[in-house]
Amino acid sequence: MEDTAYGIRTQINLPYEKAIESTTAALKDEGFGVLTTIDVKETLKKKLDVDFRRYVILGACNPPIAHKALRAETELGLLLPCNVVVYEADSEDTSVVAVMAPLVALGIIENAELHEAAKEADQRLRRVITALEKKHS
Amino acid sequence: MEDTAYGIRTQINLPYEKAIESTTAALKDEGFGVLTTIDVKETLKKKLDVDFRRYVILGACNPPIAHKALRAETELGLLLPCNVVVYEADSEDTSVVAVMAPLVALGIIENAELHEAAKEADQRLRRVITALEKKHS
Repeated sequence: MEDTAYGIRTQINLPYEKAIESTTAALKDEGFGVLTTIDVKETLKKKLDVDFRRYVILGACNPPIAHKALRAETELGLLLPCNVVVYEADSEDTSVVAVMAPLVALGIIENAELHEAAKEADQRLRRVITALEKKHS
Repeated sequence: MEDTAYGIRTQINLPYEKAIESTTAALKDEGFGVLTTIDVKETLKKKLDVDFRRYVILGACNPPIAHKALRAETELGLLLPCNVVVYEADSEDTSVVAVMAPLVALGIIENAELHEAAKEADQRLRRVITALEKKHS
């Protein structure tokens, strides 16, 4: 697991499609459902007719945590759902999975209830990455 | 227009459904399509059986800017699409529209190409809010 400017990342030994399946399952184990899916390659091809690597943005949501965060701060929807990206690495048999880390995205949080929600989401998303690494490294 | 911790916000004199329509149109005028829509009220009702105000999260994307940003930094997908939220205000005839401001979300950007993309998106999204204010204040 590697910390990045916007979250955390890992590289796993699974081809792209399998990596999406495995990531979705690992998210589910931590209570995150996938609410939205954006196929970046397909979108860029359709809108701009350019080629891009296979790349998906999954909008993951843990409803109890999201509800807690939204009650603490109405406009927190601007940071929901938690983005998870999966894309093909340079080798075909490996993929990169990266997750927005709420504690990084939110920076300093003064609201205690919001801080608690962000911390819980952050811990769970780190466990998702750890679980993927354990299974597929 | 008001700056917030995560973006910019305005309150307009339109009921909820009309506010969504008008926001979608204003986004289109600045080259942003809506790729994803999350009905927060419906999602929380379905998943947790709790009541929440009418609230939608629109995932807005300007393809040329997104492509520029992704080329500059592959993992920028963690911050895409640009979230726009519309929710009913305390009075039924007014709604709040808030937009994630890329320059706020990204903080200090060292990559020049990425900075340029974020700045362009930021300016366009501010124009969306200004246009809504002009029409519906």
